Amino acid sequence: MTKVVVIGAGIAGLKAAIDLEAAGVETIILEARDRLGGRLHTIQPFGNGFNADMGASWFHDCLVNPLLKKNVGSPDVTYYFNDGDQLWIGPSGVITKNDKVLAVQEEMVTFMNDYYQDPSKSDMSLRNFAHLYLEHTRGLLTDKQVRYSPQAFRVFELWLGQVWDTLSSKLLSEEGHVGRNAYLTSGYKSVFEKELEEYPGWREKIKLNTVVSKIAHNDKIQKVNVITTGGSSYECDYTVVTIPLGVLQLSPPEKGAVQWDPPLPSSFSRNLEKTTFAALGKIFVEFEEVFWPKDHDTFIFLGEPDNEMTQAFESRSSFKAPFQENDYRLTKDPKKWEYPLYCVNLDRASEKPVLVLLTQNPLTAWIEEDPTSRAWPVIQPMMESLAKLTGKACPSSPKALVTSQWTQDPFARGSYMGCAVGDEMTEAIQAFIDPKEIFGGSNRVRFAGEHTVFEGSGCAHGAWNSGAREAKKIVELINGKASKL
Amino acid sequence: MTKVVVIGAGIAGLKAAIDLEAAGVETIILEARDRLGGRLHTIQPFGNGFNADMGASWFHDCLVNPLLKKNVGSPDVTYYFNDGDQLWIGPSGVITKNDKVLAVQEEMVTFMNDYYQDPSKSDMSLRNFAHLYLEHTRGLLTDKQVRYSPQAFRVFELWLGQVWDTLSSKLLSEEGHVGRNAYLTSGYKSVFEKELEEYPGWREKIKLNTVVSKIAHNDKIQKVNVITTGGSSYECDYTVVTIPLGVLQLSPPEKGAVQWDPPLPSSFSRNLEKTTFAALGKIFVEFEEVFWPKDHDTFIFLGEPDNEMTQAFESRSSFKAPFQENDYRLTKDPKKWEYPLYCVNLDRASEKPVLVLLTQNPLTAWIEEDPTSRAWPVIQPMMESLAKLTGKACPSSPKALVTSQWTQDPFARGSYMGCAVGDEMTEAIQAFIDPKEIFGGSNRVRFAGEHTVFEGSGCAHGAWNSGAREAKKIVELINGKASKL
Repeated sequence: MTKVVVIGAGIAGLKAAIDLEAAGVETIILEARDRLGGRLHTIQPFGNGFNADMGASWFHDCLVNPLLKKNVGSPDVTYYFNDGDQLWIGPSGVITKNDKVLAVQEEMVTFMNDYYQDPSKSDMSLRNFAHLYLEHTRGLLTDKQVRYSPQAFRVFELWLGQVWDTLSSKLLSEEGHVGRNAYLTSGYKSVFEKELEEYPGWREKIKLNTVVSKIAHNDKIQKVNVITTGGSSYECDYTVVTIPLGVLQLSPPEKGAVQWDPPLPSSFSRNLEKTTFAALGKIFVEFEEVFWPKDHDTFIFLGEPDNEMTQAFESRSSFKAPFQENDYRLTKDPKKWEYPLYCVNLDRASEKPVLVLLTQNPLTAWIEEDPTSRAWPVIQPMMESLAKLTGKACPSSPKALVTSQWTQDPFARGSYMGCAVGDEMTEAIQAFIDPKEIFGGSNRVRFAGEHTVFEGSGCAHGAWNSGAREAKKIVELINGKASKL
Repeated sequence: MTKVVVIGAGIAGLKAAIDLEAAGVETIILEARDRLGGRLHTIQPFGNGFNADMGASWFHDCLVNPLLKKNVGSPDVTYYFNDGDQLWIGPSGVITKNDKVLAVQEEMVTFMNDYYQDPSKSDMSLRNFAHLYLEHTRGLLTDKQVRYSPQAFRVFELWLGQVWDTLSSKLLSEEGHVGRNAYLTSGYKSVFEKELEEYPGWREKIKLNTVVSKIAHNDKIQKVNVITTGGSSYECDYTVVTIPLGVLQLSPPEKGAVQWDPPLPSSFSRNLEKTTFAALGKIFVEFEEVFWPKDHDTFIFLGEPDNEMTQAFESRSSFKAPFQENDYRLTKDPKKWEYPLYCVNLDRASEKPVLVLLTQNPLTAWIEEDPTSRAWPVIQPMMESLAKLTGKACPSSPKALVTSQWTQDPFARGSYMGCAVGDEMTEAIQAFIDPKEIFGGSNRVRFAGEHTVFEGSGCAHGAWNSGAREAKKIVELINGKASKL
């Protein structure tokens, strides 16, 4: 009987194992952590009944999301479309609809998408692209639009988890969202647990606390050996590697790196180098009572205008912000309102006086290093701006606060695949889908996870799709129907 | 010296003539009406200083609009971006942001664009497509969204000038807007008059009240004769035909049809049959004072929910609204709130207590037949809904009201090219750009106008671009550089 070792008990690995077992293939799942779910991770930090997803928390692309479709009408899986009224707030107060900053931001996105229709255009950071737009539109913007529309453009930072100095405007122009986004009030654990029911015997088949250190291939008997830090060796016919991109990017002797025997082909390693693992972070903050406007689903806090850019624009001089490597770290405390933040009003979604704020690298890594002392000072000015709108008092500290820890987690090292200037995402994803050069073309190593898909990239449903895809491929390989692979 | 007769003194014909003269080609322009401008037509119905554009009134596609670019900073050409706060109002009152009807409407548009990525999908009317979306999204919409998001989807009617029973969802999915839209407070006459300055001697070269009845080709001497209803004949080397699509669609002996000698090739006539000339109408309505909310740029009035569709959806039965020919006429008075209307608050744009409402066929044709008795009753319920929001009284009649007359105008017969189910727009536009089959491939007949372009279709800048394009082609033909044409 064919044996498959799945590495990682996230939604991708679980789905692969489910579909393989359904096809009569024997599976086990090795999971490094002491818990299931991977980057689907729901906790209840503020008492029972309130679910905080530290990882994925939305059904994205609702028009084409199979995980959502599967769970529509389920009493256990509940969600909230937080696409009602939004409030845009800058350091000097509310940006109103009649400031027309959002209309300009939408035009910037159109300009970006249109600009890169010409494949000869070279990439630049989102920040430099914002300046290009201002130049293109000279004479058609108000002073306020010149200052704030680039900041509004930065909301992409909170999709990708990267600051605009690093974000590739070209790759962003290729991203598409297919429908609305539904925030899971029941937490992604509700989805994961339903999947788990489709994997009978999971308590035995999933090995927690089992860290893979080496993946080896025996050319003679055409078997793969998956070896753990504990010294165990799992022999199998195929392995599905759902190790997060951030860990795959490591190479020995870096700590936490997986050793490949024989080593990964250089073309594959190069593909890994041309990817970015971003760090979207989350701050859940609970208060005694709601002091913010109750009628808005989201608050979008815009950063302080970019004086360098504004001055360059006004003096008609050139502007070229240096590119930042995505993994750069803050060397000093961030300034107030330095970063835009995206905030969901969970009073509306979950009827609890809680806000969740999304952060981007490098802020995420900086906060996650020391959340207790760093998270609240970053968000406090925004909280005060909310209180000002209602006339209520802003507490000097929250009742409770919890942040994600993905950048501190050796088994994640970040949140999900991003896109930096210079990345070659298409090539990298293609290499994950068809990793034929590994182990001499034996096809025995398969990859799944959010970083291995073109549709649903970075999303739970993308990861789930990739698990289904790899199970199908392995079954085809077993049946000899995939000779062209 | 080469002579060109341009037919039509709209922006397309004028631009063609300007560029031809600049290249040393002799031109005249024959204009059927007693005025210049064609479907750029600014009047001052409410006294001096207030400009009402009965035809085009926006710079569209502001990112790529050469007419806007040319006039940025001009003191004579003023405009207003009416993309600030919007209010959506249905027959039962305001549709709030938190009803999330707009978010669903945006998802419908995404669904439409995504659906037709598959070229094998067959076309259907926008109305039937709305139902398809509801089915696709079953379980994910509130009752209010089920009833009102199809009505919100109908805002396309006010872009195209056609009711949703006729609109092609497939062709709509191919439309793209490139940037914001700027409403001309100085009226398009301010743009046209600046163009006119580039056409020296225009008072002599433009012949008003000169209706073309026949375009003939003399094979022997390779000349074109443009013959008027008055019996004059203008011999020329080339002619640029900017006659509106609605008139071109006529064929003799229909009244107003242009006779072609030799006749148009059947392939070209067939292309004309596979196009739609729509009828966006305008109602400018002046009041003694503003009784509507002052802080909104636009009011979007949504139609009464489509009970047939809602019932089909709720009972899970099929729904297939019959296709309507675009030129169908109302046989009875429209019901209250039967049609969505788009309304711009000109108090904000032009500081005058005036609203302009956009209408679609068949409503446009019905109103334009008898504006005095028909326009006000159609809009009165909407006006009352506005007054309700402020608590002010809605006047029982306006101070003044004026409507467009394009469907009554024998030299227009509508507003601009639309897109109905079954249309073959691409083929038709391509035939206008490269009408090589006419007059035995002599290339002496050229077409320009809003209906002859892929970018800026239906827009003033598209028409202007087409005039420039044809001037360039004729110059190339004269210089023998266009052998491949």
